[in-house]
Amino acid sequence: MLKIGLLGAGRIGQVHAVNIAANPRSALVAVSDVNADAAAALAARFGAEARATEAILSDPAIDAVLIATSTDTHSSLIEAATAAGKAVLCEKPVDLSLARAEACLKAAEATGKPVMIGFNRRFDPNFAAMKAAANAGEIGKAELLSITSFDPAPPPVSYIKVSGGLFRDMMIHDFDMANFIMGATPVAVHAVGTSIVNPEIGAAGDVDTAVVTLSYADGRIGVIRNSRRAVYGYDQRVELLGSEGLLSAENVLENTVTRATAAGVSSAKPTYFFLERYMAAYAAEWEAFVSAVLDDAPVPVSLADGVAALRVAEAATRSAQTGQTVAL
Amino acid sequence: MLKIGLLGAGRIGQVHAVNIAANPRSALVAVSDVNADAAAALAARFGAEARATEAILSDPAIDAVLIATSTDTHSSLIEAATAAGKAVLCEKPVDLSLARAEACLKAAEATGKPVMIGFNRRFDPNFAAMKAAANAGEIGKAELLSITSFDPAPPPVSYIKVSGGLFRDMMIHDFDMANFIMGATPVAVHAVGTSIVNPEIGAAGDVDTAVVTLSYADGRIGVIRNSRRAVYGYDQRVELLGSEGLLSAENVLENTVTRATAAGVSSAKPTYFFLERYMAAYAAEWEAFVSAVLDDAPVPVSLADGVAALRVAEAATRSAQTGQTVAL
Amino acid sequence: MLKIGLLGAGRIGQVHAVNIAANPRSALVAVSDVNADAAAALAARFGAEARATEAILSDPAIDAVLIATSTDTHSSLIEAATAAGKAVLCEKPVDLSLARAEACLKAAEATGKPVMIGFNRRFDPNFAAMKAAANAGEIGKAELLSITSFDPAPPPVSYIKVSGGLFRDMMIHDFDMANFIMGATPVAVHAVGTSIVNPEIGAAGDVDTAVVTLSYADGRIGVIRNSRRAVYGYDQRVELLGSEGLLSAENVLENTVTRATAAGVSSAKPTYFFLERYMAAYAAEWEAFVSAVLDDAPVPVSLADGVAALRVAEAATRSAQTGQTVAL
Amino acid sequence: MLKIGLLGAGRIGQVHAVNIAANPRSALVAVSDVNADAAAALAARFGAEARATEAILSDPAIDAVLIATSTDTHSSLIEAATAAGKAVLCEKPVDLSLARAEACLKAAEATGKPVMIGFNRRFDPNFAAMKAAANAGEIGKAELLSITSFDPAPPPVSYIKVSGGLFRDMMIHDFDMANFIMGATPVAVHAVGTSIVNPEIGAAGDVDTAVVTLSYADGRIGVIRNSRRAVYGYDQRVELLGSEGLLSAENVLENTVTRATAAGVSSAKPTYFFLERYMAAYAAEWEAFVSAVLDDAPVPVSLADGVAALRVAEAATRSAQTGQTVAL
Repeated sequence: MLKIGLLGAGRIGQVHAVNIAANPRSALVAVSDVNADAAAALAARFGAEARATEAILSDPAIDAVLIATSTDTHSSLIEAATAAGKAVLCEKPVDLSLARAEACLKAAEATGKPVMIGFNRRFDPNFAAMKAAANAGEIGKAELLSITSFDPAPPPVSYIKVSGGLFRDMMIHDFDMANFIMGATPVAVHAVGTSIVNPEIGAAGDVDTAVVTLSYADGRIGVIRNSRRAVYGYDQRVELLGSEGLLSAENVLENTVTRATAAGVSSAKPTYFFLERYMAAYAAEWEAFVSAVLDDAPVPVSLADGVAALRVAEAATRSAQTGQTVAL
Repeated sequence: MLKIGLLGAGRIGQVHAVNIAANPRSALVAVSDVNADAAAALAARFGAEARATEAILSDPAIDAVLIATSTDTHSSLIEAATAAGKAVLCEKPVDLSLARAEACLKAAEATGKPVMIGFNRRFDPNFAAMKAAANAGEIGKAELLSITSFDPAPPPVSYIKVSGGLFRDMMIHDFDMANFIMGATPVAVHAVGTSIVNPEIGAAGDVDTAVVTLSYADGRIGVIRNSRRAVYGYDQRVELLGSEGLLSAENVLENTVTRATAAGVSSAKPTYFFLERYMAAYAAEWEAFVSAVLDDAPVPVSLADGVAALRVAEAATRSAQTGQTVAL
Repeated sequence: MLKIGLLGAGRIGQVHAVNIAANPRSALVAVSDVNADAAAALAARFGAEARATEAILSDPAIDAVLIATSTDTHSSLIEAATAAGKAVLCEKPVDLSLARAEACLKAAEATGKPVMIGFNRRFDPNFAAMKAAANAGEIGKAELLSITSFDPAPPPVSYIKVSGGLFRDMMIHDFDMANFIMGATPVAVHAVGTSIVNPEIGAAGDVDTAVVTLSYADGRIGVIRNSRRAVYGYDQRVELLGSEGLLSAENVLENTVTRATAAGVSSAKPTYFFLERYMAAYAAEWEAFVSAVLDDAPVPVSLADGVAALRVAEAATRSAQTGQTVAL
Repeated sequence: MLKIGLLGAGRIGQVHAVNIAANPRSALVAVSDVNADAAAALAARFGAEARATEAILSDPAIDAVLIATSTDTHSSLIEAATAAGKAVLCEKPVDLSLARAEACLKAAEATGKPVMIGFNRRFDPNFAAMKAAANAGEIGKAELLSITSFDPAPPPVSYIKVSGGLFRDMMIHDFDMANFIMGATPVAVHAVGTSIVNPEIGAAGDVDTAVVTLSYADGRIGVIRNSRRAVYGYDQRVELLGSEGLLSAENVLENTVTRATAAGVSSAKPTYFFLERYMAAYAAEWEAFVSAVLDDAPVPVSLADGVAALRVAEAATRSAQTGQTVAL
């Protein structure tokens, strides 16, 4: 039984709290948050205590912490928690600065404690089934990967300004998915971006629509499409063409009802956003973390994986700015 | 906050226990089971007490009971629980005997306590969306209802012998679905059954494959197909043809991955059986019960609904035996 | 090279004329019609001659006739054409009277000439692929057949009155499909019909919506659903449940475009009616006739098959009128 | 009635011959081919004459020619035919040399005769419906176009060597599709190519798998994926994301049959290659040409369109070779 301290009682912290409590091998012991009321309310709901972060980290009875705080605190909290001997599951991204993330990786590795990064999509039942099928050789040797990732609506421009930009904030999930599916990191990155959804995003120095091409050492190619706006919902698809076929992971729909009328045939939209689409993935992610820590096995998405995705995001950011292909 | 006593700690009791605990407006207080160890284990997992059924019914602190025991105990427990002043959610069917179920209904109604029958499929997000679309007039006036309900594999013949037969044990869900979608009970029933899946089922006096035609007073028609065996998984579909279109609720698949190879295109199977397919429905069903009781509103599936479905099942059983259409 | 006389220059005769001309092993030589202008126009378009029916039947240079005249002339023309030594492809149904059709069968068989009935759906690429899959044992032993056949819109009541009724006029296609897929004729038929689409159809003594259950000697069951109105287009589907799986032949859509918007996801409707849906089937049907005649092989849908379908239609008509199951 | 001379009696010439004959407003008068026997056989089948190309071009009774000869003859034949006063439908590509194609355009325009290029995919019912939906504003303002175009199997390396390379030979269809859907030509092109399907293709100086990113003056982006090998069949899809939704044109399948078994659910593959997939498109293309010429209206795909697609292909070829983005 893993005893857990949860750092962050916001929306995603609440999702994790349910999974911690529902998992028969983990127990929620303590919750901290900059908003003390939020911590208290969440703790009460699951019979846990609200505490200061320091009190959680210094409690020897707590085995692991789940970091669900704002991005700018991730690196420091990973370092502090591993230094305090805790296993860590930290939300993505590790940091907006690659240098800072690399330093964090070095520090955390020195402690020998397991650190997992919350790239939740790897645990989506659809993408996981696709990866398993690829590993099982169902389409032979992989050749061309395509990832589609459109958000339902852009965040406020105020958020965009502090987000690190589309490639670090949004496409980083897709860079990790590419690393996951391809089992390798690209050797060259080319990005084209535009702010066609909202010119104010462009004025803020960012893009809202982008296509990134990834080249791999063995000749494989990957392509990622991102848009900040798909009015029909969260569009999350992956395709992998191989020597013996094509694997496709399609969207999850809100329901299976179709309506055929004189006007045409209509069906449900994709689930609206990440909380709907990836609810099952968050539970599976937590189970994977618990299993790895209790079994003393490597975590399935390491801090190094988090840094690797950030490295590709940096390259893509530079390519979009210069128009040049960036070697990695 | 509803305080709940759970009667029955078997497979379905465990599903309900999770939903009782997860719902912010209900708490699991006590569990009983003929197997005392099972009751104790389940109670411990959720911080409840294992008790005798009588002790649960006589505890004034308990507001409602969920009956998840064997079918032969349902009527008596509904009577005892309502007499003890509890609200009740009871698994289907009410009873295998229509006369006994009608007596139970009379007794329970005399207490004025709410009794809901666990026809879980009404709460499936797909069928619920279909019903909402029909109510919204999306296909005009309903004319022809079609329900497909195939189990993945037949139960043991030993179970068949005490089950009350396919119409009372399995198709009763579909009779309730027809009553739900059509908003009326049929005036005539015609059934054709066969034991083509397993002749031993026929030797036991039952059928394993059946088609039932329902006629309604206003000229509408319904048709239900049942098979005890669909090797590809639980096949649960509903179609409603109306004056302005067709509504279809299709199967839920295990995942959205497709594989295109030289051999063809393949995709996932329907979810295997009721626990997989209707997991979300069980949570929604519980939420509906809690809301109705706390809000003093009518339960969405009444004991009378449970008796009505059983009445159609009896008629279908007689029609399959005689070859004649049975009027209701 | 088969030299063909076409009897009937109406809408369906024109479809056949194109297929006769396009097939490299058949040539359109002569066309007759009660409307001499129609015959002349059609003949001119394909370099054929307009003639009287008698002149076509008595011409020794003509090998085969295609009968695309009104239903009431089919039996007599089959008898006359076979007596004149012609091979025959005749549109369905053979006749509205079972006795007359049986007499025609006897007369035609006496001539030894091949007579094929135009049950075009057997040649639809989808249903043909389904039949091939069933024959190949892909779903084991068949158990339950389901046929859906909805027309886009009802014909005028004036047509209904002379049509022979829904079972002989419309569902006869489905009775033939059942005979085709099951490889047997049913031993009992039960029909429920209603005139819910248009009460005037009921006043004319017919139904517009019907469900027919077919029982087979070996325990298999079939169910057919018909409606005269599906506002979304021609709904033509077949399902076959077997011991090892389910085969489904779905509708053909107008195109493959989908639109995902804030309002939902929409796609194209089924092709509108039989000329759109079965255009490929008509060409394949003609090729099958030409091949059988030139190769001196049995035609794939015989006159006896046409009589067999009519026999089931008669039984269904009686069942719908009496409410009783009719044995065959 | 247009009187047609067909130049080229090969596989695609035969497809065109059927459409010319079937169209009520065109007649096949003469056929030429370097293989005199092939021309004679095809001409005989449709009651036309086999002639030398020069005899066709100099015959004042012939209104239009369809050029279905080898690519290296296209430019010269377009020039000769227009100089002879014929309307022309010429198979794609105009030429492998952009300079030669531009010269041809100049010469043909000087004659004032209509020249249409056979970009058949514009007439595919699915892509045409998609374009119509986009034009109708169904997804608001276009932002991101994605074209998938995978052939079932690579051609022989001997063909690759004279093909002009993947971008001129294969992706040129997609460049035209992009020009068609976007209603504009790109201002910058970036291409990544690899010879992962067959290294011999790389040794021959070409690629077999490529991703091309197109940038438009108004900020829109397009991305094209090509592979010479998709073992499951011809994969031809287009997606257009706009401010109010997504349009998708999916593959056409061989049939609509699905098989659900214990092993999973399987369905038919995409139609095998261009003759299967685009058979309806060829007929619609011909009808469009006939209509335009008879109505004295602009042809829907002009020689200038053919040159424009070739210009993008040249840029993509250069980009793949240099790794640099190429401005247009």
